[in-house]
Amino acid sequence: MSDAALPPFGPGRHLLSVSQFDRPGLDALFALAETVTPIAERRSVCTVLDGAVLCSLFFEPSTRTRLSFESAFLRLGGEVTTTTGFTFSSMAKGESIADTSRVVSGYTDVLVVRHPDEGSVAEFAQASLVPVLNAGDGAGEHPSQALLDTYTLRKELGLRGKGIDGCTIAIIGDLRFGRTVHSLMKLLSIFSHVTFRLFAPPSLELPEYIATFVRERGHTVVHCGSAVEAVSGADVVYATRVQRERMTEELPPSLRGSLLDRAMLVEAGSTDIVIMHPLPRDSRADSYDLAADVDDLPGLSIFHQTDNGIPVRMALFLTTLGVSSEAVTMTLRQRPWDARLR
Amino acid sequence: MSDAALPPFGPGRHLLSVSQFDRPGLDALFALAETVTPIAERRSVCTVLDGAVLCSLFFEPSTRTRLSFESAFLRLGGEVTTTTGFTFSSMAKGESIADTSRVVSGYTDVLVVRHPDEGSVAEFAQASLVPVLNAGDGAGEHPSQALLDTYTLRKELGLRGKGIDGCTIAIIGDLRFGRTVHSLMKLLSIFSHVTFRLFAPPSLELPEYIATFVRERGHTVVHCGSAVEAVSGADVVYATRVQRERMTEELPPSLRGSLLDRAMLVEAGSTDIVIMHPLPRDSRADSYDLAADVDDLPGLSIFHQTDNGIPVRMALFLTTLGVSSEAVTMTLRQRPWDARLR
Amino acid sequence: MSDAALPPFGPGRHLLSVSQFDRPGLDALFALAETVTPIAERRSVCTVLDGAVLCSLFFEPSTRTRLSFESAFLRLGGEVTTTTGFTFSSMAKGESIADTSRVVSGYTDVLVVRHPDEGSVAEFAQASLVPVLNAGDGAGEHPSQALLDTYTLRKELGLRGKGIDGCTIAIIGDLRFGRTVHSLMKLLSIFSHVTFRLFAPPSLELPEYIATFVRERGHTVVHCGSAVEAVSGADVVYATRVQRERMTEELPPSLRGSLLDRAMLVEAGSTDIVIMHPLPRDSRADSYDLAADVDDLPGLSIFHQTDNGIPVRMALFLTTLGVSSEAVTMTLRQRPWDARLR
Repeated sequence: MSDAALPPFGPGRHLLSVSQFDRPGLDALFALAETVTPIAERRSVCTVLDGAVLCSLFFEPSTRTRLSFESAFLRLGGEVTTTTGFTFSSMAKGESIADTSRVVSGYTDVLVVRHPDEGSVAEFAQASLVPVLNAGDGAGEHPSQALLDTYTLRKELGLRGKGIDGCTIAIIGDLRFGRTVHSLMKLLSIFSHVTFRLFAPPSLELPEYIATFVRERGHTVVHCGSAVEAVSGADVVYATRVQRERMTEELPPSLRGSLLDRAMLVEAGSTDIVIMHPLPRDSRADSYDLAADVDDLPGLSIFHQTDNGIPVRMALFLTTLGVSSEAVTMTLRQRPWDARLR
Repeated sequence: MSDAALPPFGPGRHLLSVSQFDRPGLDALFALAETVTPIAERRSVCTVLDGAVLCSLFFEPSTRTRLSFESAFLRLGGEVTTTTGFTFSSMAKGESIADTSRVVSGYTDVLVVRHPDEGSVAEFAQASLVPVLNAGDGAGEHPSQALLDTYTLRKELGLRGKGIDGCTIAIIGDLRFGRTVHSLMKLLSIFSHVTFRLFAPPSLELPEYIATFVRERGHTVVHCGSAVEAVSGADVVYATRVQRERMTEELPPSLRGSLLDRAMLVEAGSTDIVIMHPLPRDSRADSYDLAADVDDLPGLSIFHQTDNGIPVRMALFLTTLGVSSEAVTMTLRQRPWDARLR
Repeated sequence: MSDAALPPFGPGRHLLSVSQFDRPGLDALFALAETVTPIAERRSVCTVLDGAVLCSLFFEPSTRTRLSFESAFLRLGGEVTTTTGFTFSSMAKGESIADTSRVVSGYTDVLVVRHPDEGSVAEFAQASLVPVLNAGDGAGEHPSQALLDTYTLRKELGLRGKGIDGCTIAIIGDLRFGRTVHSLMKLLSIFSHVTFRLFAPPSLELPEYIATFVRERGHTVVHCGSAVEAVSGADVVYATRVQRERMTEELPPSLRGSLLDRAMLVEAGSTDIVIMHPLPRDSRADSYDLAADVDDLPGLSIFHQTDNGIPVRMALFLTTLGVSSEAVTMTLRQRPWDARLR
């Protein structure tokens, strides 16, 4: 969490970490995301990025993240080239990250890069001629996920007459290896007086330095003994998948079953809580994850998160490419097609 | 063959099965395919789907089908994101088909889905926000193939002053596992008085329920002892690849060599027959398939089938997205480029 | 080197070999590349290929070549479908190259094909309905690489008040298996009085027939005993990666270390030489390749080569599709976005 040196995100800037956002920066990004929502929702068509080329370079697979970035760019009128999988051929032949970056950045206008190794995307950005957006670098950051989570959180709380300032968020599941949780807590720390109610299975607890980081910024961290205890009184629950292969201890018998299900929410008196999850959700019979029996509760927001990924990523592209919301509006058009099911 | 519950294919509707077509529905689709043929043949350019995004999700590889759908969408001015291969990462982590569908359908305007398991595409469609076109689900259906086959059949017979009503079609090869054949016979059953002359190697015979299905609709099914006998007197021969790994018995010595070659057509007096095949055709030396020595016969239509796949799939996209042929015509433009070889 | 039968490259023609270019043909291609440079450099936007569809078929991976061709086509307003990897499914089922080519060429307006086997791209072209551009066929040709190398060479020498006629080029590294070197020497032979100063490690020497080919066209070939000797007095050095797995002998102790580094250029008095390399460059510790310590020398042109690949490939597409530079100019537009880093 020592990337204080990174400049604020803006025109002509790489997106490497959530630390590049302060409150005004976040407000500007979210305002732009609101502006492009009619395009994201297919109510109108935009060609502002006509002629721009995105290259998405995924050195490890992440289909949903890739499709979300690519769809966002295409909705703005841009074009996409893509590379996926572990076998990026040149690097297999010993090419340095710097050489790969310099070459590919000469082909395109913006790069979305996913890499299994922490710090690799920043290294990639250093040699690039054009802006690089970090789509996840191993144990490092996944800033667009934290941004769309925060955007969703603000929207869902707003619908309930609340804001992020002063809210209570239960965060449950894998708090140790869950990169998503770390980036989210870091980003939420720019708001005021958030209460985090945490619950993690044994050996998957939140690293102490993150609790310290948010406490130093005036927030409250409460460690809870169960998912029911964590969600009690919270406005939101953010659940993350437990990857069993990452646990050093056996899951204790008391934790068999779901990480969170409808019965637990009933027990906690929280059936109207905002329910979030970064997805994918493990739906196999023996998974320790968010159960599908919560899917018809009114606060279910897990698909609002993925839906919101489109306008948030559109806003990221527009910001780094220096396109104003006025320029977007000037190219809006009606569309003669209709994708709604009947 | 019990999908009577599916609604007719039309605006805002999924395409899951050929059972969604009756004669008027098929006529409307084919009329639209004729309208867009100048675009398919690169004589003019169209931008009616400008701003629309297709996601093609191939959970098993099928390069030609994928390229055909994607090219069809691109020719209408749309944009494409694509995912191929067995390792669709989220599903490998235990994500349900419903979750995957709901997420990806929030990114796009229409989905083309191929899946190795029968029924999976229908399951996918159920959770989708936007129309899903079935590009093949294992032993289930591959409706766009049956539609382009029937379109080609109608066109080729039309050039010879005939129609599908009352025609005679030889269908030879793998009639048991050949999903293509089942969908085609089912679709052709909406025409009148078709005579099917069938020939299959031992253990690859047509399932009895399909013969019953077409007979109940007034058609004639004749089982033949050889390819030569099947093609004799037929207007069309539709040959399908025999995948030897699917045979439980040895191919008898009498069936060594080609499934159908020029000599057999000469013997049957059928050298001007319309020759169809769903492709790919196995051209290895020991393959039991359609021989390449028929390629210069006047009735060879196997590449007309793949060519016709473009306008038929364009018509499928336009129909489900509710675009009229007038809207298409309004965006037609001349093109300053020319792809013809000289 | 016996493809004298190939017609000159031009409208409606396949690009299979550098032998399809004479001096006027090369001048015309390079003039077109200069015309489209503002588009390649993102200073303006062009839609001349609106509605045209490229299919890039890579039967072996070559990410940078694929991305370069695709970006070039997208910058002209075209659309791209793509297939990569060894498992092109139809061919795995025994489909002939001719069938695959005929089918896919019915879907698209131009094809870029890469194949591991020499001659396969020409075989592919023979059955295609639309122009095919060879993106490398095993030990055969990689004409677009030789063209962008020659374009870069001409530009870099031009900046220094020189031309290719009469220049001296050191070519070092793998001269035996390096397809790039063979195509480049062949193409440069249409210029006058070039001096080639060659250095290769044992067992990787230039095949004699290539030396003979260029000598017969009036050029000079000098075999040198070291990289330092080769670069001494040369205007340009073109270095290629040595793939150790291709060497039948141990690399002798005298050749341990870099193929070419800054110290050698200092020793040769050539620190201002134009430095070229087809990339990728092997940057692993024990690689025998161009060292990274030359990267801040004024003549470093290895990334100019990859950058120049875009306008050269744009010119190839425009030429084969019969688009004039006037047609390009007519569709030029300002762009409301800016990809420059700040």
